[in-house]
Amino acid sequence: MSNYVLDTWYPIAWSRDISRTLSARKIVEQEVVLFRTEAGGVVAMEDACPHRLLPLSMGKLKGDAIECGYHGMTYDCSGKCVRVPGQEIVPPSAIVKTYPTHENMGLVWIWMGNPTLADKSKVFDLPQYHDPAWSSAEGDALEIKANYLSLADNLCDPAHVSFVHLSTLGNAASEDIPVMHEEQDGKMLTWRWIIDAPPIPIFKKYGNFKGNVDRWHYYHYYAPSIAIIDFGSADTGTGAPEGRRDNCMQIYACHFMTPVDQETSIDHWLHVKNFPADSTLNAALSAEFRIAFAEDKAILEAIQRNETRLATRKTIKIAIDAAPRRMRRMVDGMVEKEVPAT
Amino acid sequence: MSNYVLDTWYPIAWSRDISRTLSARKIVEQEVVLFRTEAGGVVAMEDACPHRLLPLSMGKLKGDAIECGYHGMTYDCSGKCVRVPGQEIVPPSAIVKTYPTHENMGLVWIWMGNPTLADKSKVFDLPQYHDPAWSSAEGDALEIKANYLSLADNLCDPAHVSFVHLSTLGNAASEDIPVMHEEQDGKMLTWRWIIDAPPIPIFKKYGNFKGNVDRWHYYHYYAPSIAIIDFGSADTGTGAPEGRRDNCMQIYACHFMTPVDQETSIDHWLHVKNFPADSTLNAALSAEFRIAFAEDKAILEAIQRNETRLATRKTIKIAIDAAPRRMRRMVDGMVEKEVPAT
Amino acid sequence: MSNYVLDTWYPIAWSRDISRTLSARKIVEQEVVLFRTEAGGVVAMEDACPHRLLPLSMGKLKGDAIECGYHGMTYDCSGKCVRVPGQEIVPPSAIVKTYPTHENMGLVWIWMGNPTLADKSKVFDLPQYHDPAWSSAEGDALEIKANYLSLADNLCDPAHVSFVHLSTLGNAASEDIPVMHEEQDGKMLTWRWIIDAPPIPIFKKYGNFKGNVDRWHYYHYYAPSIAIIDFGSADTGTGAPEGRRDNCMQIYACHFMTPVDQETSIDHWLHVKNFPADSTLNAALSAEFRIAFAEDKAILEAIQRNETRLATRKTIKIAIDAAPRRMRRMVDGMVEKEVPAT
Repeated sequence: MSNYVLDTWYPIAWSRDISRTLSARKIVEQEVVLFRTEAGGVVAMEDACPHRLLPLSMGKLKGDAIECGYHGMTYDCSGKCVRVPGQEIVPPSAIVKTYPTHENMGLVWIWMGNPTLADKSKVFDLPQYHDPAWSSAEGDALEIKANYLSLADNLCDPAHVSFVHLSTLGNAASEDIPVMHEEQDGKMLTWRWIIDAPPIPIFKKYGNFKGNVDRWHYYHYYAPSIAIIDFGSADTGTGAPEGRRDNCMQIYACHFMTPVDQETSIDHWLHVKNFPADSTLNAALSAEFRIAFAEDKAILEAIQRNETRLATRKTIKIAIDAAPRRMRRMVDGMVEKEVPAT
Repeated sequence: MSNYVLDTWYPIAWSRDISRTLSARKIVEQEVVLFRTEAGGVVAMEDACPHRLLPLSMGKLKGDAIECGYHGMTYDCSGKCVRVPGQEIVPPSAIVKTYPTHENMGLVWIWMGNPTLADKSKVFDLPQYHDPAWSSAEGDALEIKANYLSLADNLCDPAHVSFVHLSTLGNAASEDIPVMHEEQDGKMLTWRWIIDAPPIPIFKKYGNFKGNVDRWHYYHYYAPSIAIIDFGSADTGTGAPEGRRDNCMQIYACHFMTPVDQETSIDHWLHVKNFPADSTLNAALSAEFRIAFAEDKAILEAIQRNETRLATRKTIKIAIDAAPRRMRRMVDGMVEKEVPAT
Repeated sequence: MSNYVLDTWYPIAWSRDISRTLSARKIVEQEVVLFRTEAGGVVAMEDACPHRLLPLSMGKLKGDAIECGYHGMTYDCSGKCVRVPGQEIVPPSAIVKTYPTHENMGLVWIWMGNPTLADKSKVFDLPQYHDPAWSSAEGDALEIKANYLSLADNLCDPAHVSFVHLSTLGNAASEDIPVMHEEQDGKMLTWRWIIDAPPIPIFKKYGNFKGNVDRWHYYHYYAPSIAIIDFGSADTGTGAPEGRRDNCMQIYACHFMTPVDQETSIDHWLHVKNFPADSTLNAALSAEFRIAFAEDKAILEAIQRNETRLATRKTIKIAIDAAPRRMRRMVDGMVEKEVPAT
């Protein structure tokens, strides 16, 4: 059984990558062709001509229509066939499925479910992304050969940082600090504070801390596929845990995930931070994140292989599993309550 | 269910490639070993020693017999075992299946069905191939990861040329001209004429036309796996459509296809033309065809992937589909009326 | 159905390759992590953390314990979890399966079956390996994409040498000499003598024979996965067949095979011989064996492909099949009499 939520906005591509060239993407096991109209909007259609199933992405963009590369059948951006070369009549059933899209935060978002429910005001937004006092930089579209809910487990789980990301985002000081969690409406929040400890490697490298810091990780997981990791540090004793964060260094690592198929996901990641950054600093920070997320990728792909191989194995649970398990129940609930469009 | 016609002559290899070396080929999901006898004939046997199933193509040719590379069991060219090293008695069941073969038009043809029906006089022939007034050149053995009937669709379909082969065999002048078709005995003929239009790129390049031409495409599809594409042009107004083709340029693009398995086919292609050609001109023309057929390959392979992925999808039909659909019914009829050899 | 014997000692790695670094291996479809303790012993555990199934080989060795690379759960070398970071309580079910191991003849041996039956005194040994009058050299861990019983067929079969290994271990003189066999307790012995014949290529190259030799091959197959090939030659007429082998050249080619999965095996091979050899001579002899075993690999992999493709094909039997067939019945008997550990 599929575990994809369909009635939701998924990221499908960086806005920077969608242009007047036809681009192919895959999401929830569907092939999609994307292009930008002459007016600048983004059109998404099923990537198969209903005649012989040639991917439309192998055709030509003519104005805002796609001409199939096999026999020239032409579909306007509503998916309606407007030309069949060699004949006058266009079969009324010659229609390609289209999908609602929207752009925000440098990404193209797509709605794969019931289109009558697609409300563009619900596309995810992080206010700080638009705040001139903050800076941001786009990262990569990282392919991970693992189910997207396995990525979600990882993103409801601050504890892994102490073991997986020792050269970048974590250090041993946090190893034994328990993780808190709270289920909120459509969201799982997990967090912990590490008080009076050495800064993590990237804060040591790019920050300006005098000695030990008070450090926090807040993982905001918006089901089914978005995670905002709020992490930061302030000099110990300056009151950060009580809410005074005037002199802190704070980064939102944003993960916008595309479920491609049951064993493939794409993590579109970017970072937003409370300090100015030129392109050199942004590139340096992205390089650090690239190391960290490659570590996650290695682990998630190895787990995927073992889960496939040991499909009936019953695993053991520990305290930090409470949040991922509740997150999965939340996603299951979203899937169950969906009524397929008729 | 298999859709292979078995009681037919299929091309399996270029004659030039079959020698005193053992060669392995695959056709209708069977592995076959081929070699040329000392007298020059072609022997085809199942490529598996009946003892331990080692491919006989990994053995040695000894005279007109094959010695298996594992234990030296030796099979003469009728498939009968004539030696088992280390023992006197040869088990009577030690027999390898052989297949009738014939050579014509530079190709080795094989009969995979009931051998009692294999009539060598029925091997396909194109008289012009042997006519000294015409010239010919062999092309490649192009592997296409698609079912052979998808290639057949393409070869009952002159309409695709206007969209797929714009740099070589087609141009926009033919886009809207309907295709005619006629079912003949064991054959599907599709055609169209483009009157008073600019010549197609390869005729512009290699022909000697004053201005516009009258151009024809006749696609002769001999079920199940041979297509002769008769295409040519003559100066407009010189009477070509009425049958006067004295000053025309005419090429038969010949496609001799091997169904390898349900998702793999080999297209052995060559060209025969009504003008002399030295090796330089032949190579230049082959290079043009190589571009065009690589375009077909890209399309047919993409369609195969989408057909596999969307196996239950109902596609829409347009006017040009009439001929391919009738061709497929013709092939289905051939498969159904076959009685397996007992 | 699985055809693996489990209650037996299998070779799993060269001792030289197991160190204080975590090493992953696969055997009878199970993933195993291996390491050497501080005291020098070899520990083998299932290569999956029972929490999220991350391979433990991706973790860290801490003393004689493995710390999982995802959340730091730590397992001592009995497989018991001794630490769960962030919580006091260690779930009693957090146990990783361990496997008995032993080292002999340069190899690590593992017991994948019922551990209460693992008797280290039963690990295979070849006395000459330890005899200072003999010399030995380790070869490779050769991966062969074939079932281990197909390798076993090959190693109960001296007849193939005359056809497969003509440049190294065989020559035509033996082609027609029948093979003898005898089933012994847990062992299949096959052999033949070739009297008064030219020496085989490697004996011609490295031996010192005056002319023809008397040559023997004794294949000792210890079910389910060990073969010792005793082959040698002596000048003709010096009484070797009657047992006088004082001036002979004798080599034990040892094959210690790991069944990885149904279509993959590893052959750990080495050679032990009755003459001194420095590293240059050992390397030269290993190079000869490497050629010969690559020939076996090519044949066994081609057979595996044809067996998979022609799964229902009934093959014919000849005289030399008697020993491999009895060997397979012996292995079947071992599998059947095993009672799974409860």
